[in-house]
Amino acid sequence: MKKNLKIGLAQINSRVGDLQFNLSKISNLISLAKKRNVDLLCFPELALTGYPPEDLLLNNKFLKSIDVAVKNLEKITSGISVIIGYPRKIDKKLFNVAGVFVEGKLQKEYKKFQLPNYGVFDEDRYFEKGTEPVTFTIHNRKIGITICEDIWVDTKAINKRIRNDPIDLLINLSASPFSLDKQKRRLHILKKISKKNRIGICYCNIVGGQDELVFDGRSMVLDNNGNVVAYGKEFEEDLLIKNVNFKKNKSSICLSKKDDSHYLEKVLLALRLGLKDYVHKNNFSKVLLGISGGIDSALAAAIAVQALGKNNVLGIALPTQYNSDKSLNLAQELSRNIGFKLRVASIQGVFENTNKLLADMIYGKTPRDTTEENLQARIRANVLMATSNKLGHLLLCSGNKSEISIGYSTLYGDATGGLAILKDIPKTLVYKLARFYNRLNPDNLIPKEIILREPSAELRENQKDSDSLPPYRTLDAILELYIEEGKSLKEISSTLKISRALTSTIIQKVNNSEFKRRQSPPGIKITVKAFGRDRRYPITNRFIDA
Amino acid sequence: MKKNLKIGLAQINSRVGDLQFNLSKISNLISLAKKRNVDLLCFPELALTGYPPEDLLLNNKFLKSIDVAVKNLEKITSGISVIIGYPRKIDKKLFNVAGVFVEGKLQKEYKKFQLPNYGVFDEDRYFEKGTEPVTFTIHNRKIGITICEDIWVDTKAINKRIRNDPIDLLINLSASPFSLDKQKRRLHILKKISKKNRIGICYCNIVGGQDELVFDGRSMVLDNNGNVVAYGKEFEEDLLIKNVNFKKNKSSICLSKKDDSHYLEKVLLALRLGLKDYVHKNNFSKVLLGISGGIDSALAAAIAVQALGKNNVLGIALPTQYNSDKSLNLAQELSRNIGFKLRVASIQGVFENTNKLLADMIYGKTPRDTTEENLQARIRANVLMATSNKLGHLLLCSGNKSEISIGYSTLYGDATGGLAILKDIPKTLVYKLARFYNRLNPDNLIPKEIILREPSAELRENQKDSDSLPPYRTLDAILELYIEEGKSLKEISSTLKISRALTSTIIQKVNNSEFKRRQSPPGIKITVKAFGRDRRYPITNRFIDA
Repeated sequence: MKKNLKIGLAQINSRVGDLQFNLSKISNLISLAKKRNVDLLCFPELALTGYPPEDLLLNNKFLKSIDVAVKNLEKITSGISVIIGYPRKIDKKLFNVAGVFVEGKLQKEYKKFQLPNYGVFDEDRYFEKGTEPVTFTIHNRKIGITICEDIWVDTKAINKRIRNDPIDLLINLSASPFSLDKQKRRLHILKKISKKNRIGICYCNIVGGQDELVFDGRSMVLDNNGNVVAYGKEFEEDLLIKNVNFKKNKSSICLSKKDDSHYLEKVLLALRLGLKDYVHKNNFSKVLLGISGGIDSALAAAIAVQALGKNNVLGIALPTQYNSDKSLNLAQELSRNIGFKLRVASIQGVFENTNKLLADMIYGKTPRDTTEENLQARIRANVLMATSNKLGHLLLCSGNKSEISIGYSTLYGDATGGLAILKDIPKTLVYKLARFYNRLNPDNLIPKEIILREPSAELRENQKDSDSLPPYRTLDAILELYIEEGKSLKEISSTLKISRALTSTIIQKVNNSEFKRRQSPPGIKITVKAFGRDRRYPITNRFIDA
Repeated sequence: MKKNLKIGLAQINSRVGDLQFNLSKISNLISLAKKRNVDLLCFPELALTGYPPEDLLLNNKFLKSIDVAVKNLEKITSGISVIIGYPRKIDKKLFNVAGVFVEGKLQKEYKKFQLPNYGVFDEDRYFEKGTEPVTFTIHNRKIGITICEDIWVDTKAINKRIRNDPIDLLINLSASPFSLDKQKRRLHILKKISKKNRIGICYCNIVGGQDELVFDGRSMVLDNNGNVVAYGKEFEEDLLIKNVNFKKNKSSICLSKKDDSHYLEKVLLALRLGLKDYVHKNNFSKVLLGISGGIDSALAAAIAVQALGKNNVLGIALPTQYNSDKSLNLAQELSRNIGFKLRVASIQGVFENTNKLLADMIYGKTPRDTTEENLQARIRANVLMATSNKLGHLLLCSGNKSEISIGYSTLYGDATGGLAILKDIPKTLVYKLARFYNRLNPDNLIPKEIILREPSAELRENQKDSDSLPPYRTLDAILELYIEEGKSLKEISSTLKISRALTSTIIQKVNNSEFKRRQSPPGIKITVKAFGRDRRYPITNRFIDA
């Protein structure tokens, strides 16, 4: 029996549906691992297809091409053991599988027991549950298999499995999307299982952006005392190789503290990767966005430049009479500092023409109301989308979670674009991220005045966000308790010591703007409860919880 | 033992989330049923909350208000037996329940066994499965309970239940959404169960529109030979009362043939109800839509007038230099025939101004391409949305399924509105519906020329749909096989005897326009596979099945 096993954790950035691309990536890593004498190379959950493949899993041709790819995997796994996740139809039922390839043979297939079907997950829509534990042996070391959710739902069941059939090492293949505090929660569970069973764990997580989700990688090896002895990179592909030692009772050095990045850095990395992958995986290279001189578009532009390079970001300022000179000056200062190109085009003429057409031909002279405010936002969207069509740049939306929550945005106006990069970032977090970005990038500053000035949509004379909204600190506190924690009006009002009237107004705004969110661009999930697949509310809804 | 039981099937149009409204409706029907000496009154699945309540089911206050409503149900059910569906938290688990109220007491709660989690359904997201069959007795007649999916998944299990514990009558409470042929499929299953077990069945289905779904009601009573002895109305609320006779072997008259409406009529009724409920349940009374002189907007306007009344529909024609005089004349003839008001406003000036702004200030002089076509559609959307905002009319989108499938539409342009009434209607079906509408409404004709003229988007000189698309008959045949039946390129091409190249082009267009559909308005499901919650494809998707 070998004293150590050399284990590789290949946290790859798969492309959903692109089996050829994924297989070639997998093949390269297998070659590399062989050269480095790895005994067992692990790939993440559904690494072969990318995660989540959604309704591609109902496509027979897709399922058949997986069978072909699995055959190809056998060809390239001679001389090494490999465990890798893929969906597989077995006896007319579809499973979420971990295939164990030993010496060029598919030796075993473990079928995931626990299928998440909450939040962003829809696994019951596609998969049947597995019921048979699977272990395999390498150099006389017995290894147990789990897939993602298996360890989250019921650690007692995992402990029982291990008690009934003792193993030397537990593998977990995951496609675990990033959200704030998720890394801590993962570590907590892994430590618990490791300590309870005095067992080492290899946790291999996928990495990359896929529509609304970002997977952060950050694979881990834990010794049999629950200590992390090796980490994979965060938000980057990595091949983590570690000699796993099976001596019991040996306390290793815990890496969990010294390796921890700041949570704001994690969020910036998540947004950067989510944006980059969305753009590139959808065959774009360049983006454009409206630059107002406000904080949201400034942060979005700064992240876009980091993700894609300054030559791949185009800013467009589209002022009317309601936009201050200061806004334009700040937009220009931002573009100089961050280094992207800025075009300026006043939409005042088009705005006036359209207003005249509406008054003359459709609804007559009327007092100004939000119609004219929305119209400005929609004319901007038209100019931005025309530019997107003409130049082939993807339009970014820079609306934040606070405004999207309460409908303080214009459908088909500022809420347009291929991706809404800040959709899950509350306004107060936008400010924190901008300040943190400035700390990290002293040579490419977001102008301080952009961070300090009072927020305004500048859609009418002297408009301020505070005219119609409570301070963002208050608003975001209410929204967090309501949307992320599911608290009631009463609980929110008493926890925050805020009037029931204000709390009620905000909750009603959230409920009344579902129709806008249903047609809004996808955004990158960062919090525990994002909009999109994560939160499925009816548009037609008469429940009054405020 | 009474020879007959007088059973009432109350197919009600609940409002999702509006427990007070629903309870008051339920209460009125209970009073009416008491007056008519009904022994057992049945309400549909989740009748108390409306179906589907989606993530409202994760809201604790919502769940608590159901407990209160159930207590209220006890108060109003003295002197009658009532069975009604609602969600209920029991021992910390949420179930889809049928509550049996006898003489003012909640006697039993049956928990749904089979939870649909495919297509538009997400019941595993919310509910636990029930495992205990429930029967109850009225006038010594033993009655079994099922909820919707219970009878669809596994009729053998139902037969076994009945064998193990014989009953006199089977109840099924449903929230079964309409789609083409769905009524036949329901009847087929009910007949099978009835005949096999020599048992009568009362099938009580909910009615009404809820976002993407329309429930068609059409409750049924079957005798113990599988014959339908009474039907509830289609697409309307109804209280169906029937004396159920328990004599075995008596053959009753089968109503299934003579009562069957034409499938095109069913589709028109479904669209009308779906639209009416979407508009009214979201607190609108009036709609507006762009009228082009083409068939889609003509049919949409005709249905809207039937659903809401001619004074509640406003048409707006927004021509440019590319729109023929004939189009405008036909739009005007349509408005006169159908009876809605039409406004006309040329967007040519705004179009030219915007183009000049784009060329001068942003991307310079360029050859014309689809950018300018999209821009016209988006300027129209701006004018329509401004009118919507100013007048408080809901904007209808009249895009059809064929164009939405292949992205032959402009995001934020013609694909805008609160509801896309024809989203699930292929173009060839649009034609059939228009002709059928004219047969039913000889005094309010859609002008024949609108039906006969060659379809065109009129976004450039002499443009025809056939410039870039195959004939709609061919296109729709490909789309039906691909989207609804999940056939492969090879199968489609050989079934239809169409070149692989054309089939491949169409399939690729479907896959490449997911980003547009994700931001498109909700539409009313009519076919077996609609867009929206029914079909969940990734935007970022590199699978090539063409």
